[in-house]
Amino acid sequence: MPKFMDVHEGFHGATQEQLAEAHQRDLDTEGQDGVHFEHAWLDPESGKVFCLSTAPDKEAVMRVHERSGHPTDQVFELPVEA
Amino acid sequence: MPKFMDVHEGFHGATQEQLAEAHQRDLDTEGQDGVHFEHAWLDPESGKVFCLSTAPDKEAVMRVHERSGHPTDQVFELPVEA
Repeated sequence: MPKFMDVHEGFHGATQEQLAEAHQRDLDTEGQDGVHFEHAWLDPESGKVFCLSTAPDKEAVMRVHERSGHPTDQVFELPVEA
Repeated sequence: MPKFMDVHEGFHGATQEQLAEAHQRDLDTEGQDGVHFEHAWLDPESGKVFCLSTAPDKEAVMRVHERSGHPTDQVFELPVEA
């Protein structure tokens, strides 16, 4: 299953609870699109969130995030890793 | 130890061997700055590389990457994760 990294902007000053809640919304419905969000990391200073997932394609990742209320079009497929 | 995600641009069409070689250059000298690069992911289409590390600070991450010949100023501290 392809891996993806996606990037969200605008989470300035977000807390552990807010990130966990946003991530849980993804987990709650990801199965509808065959996606699994493995991990999310937040930099509250820049407001960036990085999400690592496995998914059938980029559009599936975007659908789950849009349904959860935090859409992004910055989704990158990761066929190579080290 | 703080965690960081950094982003590199311009790796369009890079191969598994090229990513592994670039990552190995980081591993070879990271100890000088107290950094450890845990993982690197590449999207050859956009040319982006994402590196996850632990380090004393952002500047230490930048020093290792600069010494390895792939400098970046896109380094984000990740105090919150889910």
